[in-house]
Amino acid sequence: MRTALLQSSGRPGSVEGNLKVLDEAAGRAAAAGAALLAAPEMFLTGYAIGDDIAHLAEVADGESADAVAEIACRHGVAIAYGYPELAGVAEVEGGSGPDGGSVFNSAQLISADGTRLANYRKTHLFGCFERDQFEPGEQAVVQAELGGLTVGLMICYDVEFPENVRAHALAGTDLLIVPTAQMHPFQFVAESLVPVRAWENQMYVAYVNRVGQEGEFEFLGLSVLAGPDGVARARAGRSEELVFADTDPEFLAASREANPYLADRRPGLYGSLV
Amino acid sequence: MRTALLQSSGRPGSVEGNLKVLDEAAGRAAAAGAALLAAPEMFLTGYAIGDDIAHLAEVADGESADAVAEIACRHGVAIAYGYPELAGVAEVEGGSGPDGGSVFNSAQLISADGTRLANYRKTHLFGCFERDQFEPGEQAVVQAELGGLTVGLMICYDVEFPENVRAHALAGTDLLIVPTAQMHPFQFVAESLVPVRAWENQMYVAYVNRVGQEGEFEFLGLSVLAGPDGVARARAGRSEELVFADTDPEFLAASREANPYLADRRPGLYGSLV
Repeated sequence: MRTALLQSSGRPGSVEGNLKVLDEAAGRAAAAGAALLAAPEMFLTGYAIGDDIAHLAEVADGESADAVAEIACRHGVAIAYGYPELAGVAEVEGGSGPDGGSVFNSAQLISADGTRLANYRKTHLFGCFERDQFEPGEQAVVQAELGGLTVGLMICYDVEFPENVRAHALAGTDLLIVPTAQMHPFQFVAESLVPVRAWENQMYVAYVNRVGQEGEFEFLGLSVLAGPDGVARARAGRSEELVFADTDPEFLAASREANPYLADRRPGLYGSLV
Repeated sequence: MRTALLQSSGRPGSVEGNLKVLDEAAGRAAAAGAALLAAPEMFLTGYAIGDDIAHLAEVADGESADAVAEIACRHGVAIAYGYPELAGVAEVEGGSGPDGGSVFNSAQLISADGTRLANYRKTHLFGCFERDQFEPGEQAVVQAELGGLTVGLMICYDVEFPENVRAHALAGTDLLIVPTAQMHPFQFVAESLVPVRAWENQMYVAYVNRVGQEGEFEFLGLSVLAGPDGVARARAGRSEELVFADTDPEFLAASREANPYLADRRPGLYGSLV
């Protein structure tokens, strides 16, 4: 399955502007034969927009999700994207959102026929900014089937915790999509940690970053799709880019056979982790 | 604390020859101001020596441990080294060893005054060769205090499991000593995975490898001491070398403050790992 990584900061604060950027990228992705387009964390609204996050938050099946589904259908490409999710009032009483609902830092996967396949709420919030704006999610592993692969969703800081990615490996994730907003000075994560996660868990990991200055944050770019051999199949630089990489189920199966990390684990010795 | 990494294959099959190599290295380490000399996996006997492993195995406080203690005392440097450990008959009945005791792939730390500080038995055995020769250890975390640091021991394949190193981080390990026998084609582990382990767990990791051809195995060298910033403080090439690096408790404390991975973990979500 060919995957396109949309390294972009889009138009912070403008949902309409970001949907246009997504539409244009989906067209280019489809033309290049991609079955999946992945966009960064909080792509729908922008990340460094302060309290506008709460004002622009929508429920998972809201108007913007419909707009993304329409883009996916029109171009025939699945789309994974980050957005601020407003939990319904019925779901959470008395949360942090503007109408009594909580706001989550979420990523949603919508299929090429417009079906909402999976929605993930970031479980590991990063720093004061995120803890002020969001509630943490409570479901560690969110997956969907796509293009013959088990695809998982995770967001930015989540991937830096080896426990998280291991949970996906144990649940059978083949391709982990990680929308991110990775900032200076954490390039080590993009350059080294993400390929190691792919290796030690024997999966593909797609890490899709924002890029450039937004308010106080300098986003790093360096988006990457790494294979189970720890090798980057595609790597973006530090500018706005659409990069492509293929996943190969046969290669993945052979790599797992040669590197039986999951079989060689000794869970009885890991009790202190939980 | 300055640590010397002895990247060498020594004299496979000759305990006497390896003790001589260790003695010479301890002299050079002490002269360079090192407080600790770390040698590779199975350094005392050699790794690729087949059934001689069982014949050369000794109990943790055996004659060779006394010889290593004498070297440590004479040069005033602590020594960590790998060796095949024979469990006493009283400890394990009916094991794989020549006299009814089991054989473990172990690493021992002996202080500069000759005290045996810690002994670790490899918990994650690699491949058929090791499973034929050794019993797995059952204690995940083995530590000792040395030079103001909490030092942990682990061996080769163990470090490739993120759960293992996390258990050390949670137990307070500052410097993880990893004697190894890392072979072609796994250079990714030495080059990328070890620095990521240091980063994600906010500790120093010293990975000390054998080098060169031994029987069917081509050992890779590339020994490294990585800091909590993921940066290698010392890195060996692919020849016999003694390399040095310093650990810095103040830098470690500041790095942990800036990268609060342990505080930001969500153990309640990691249940599937155990």
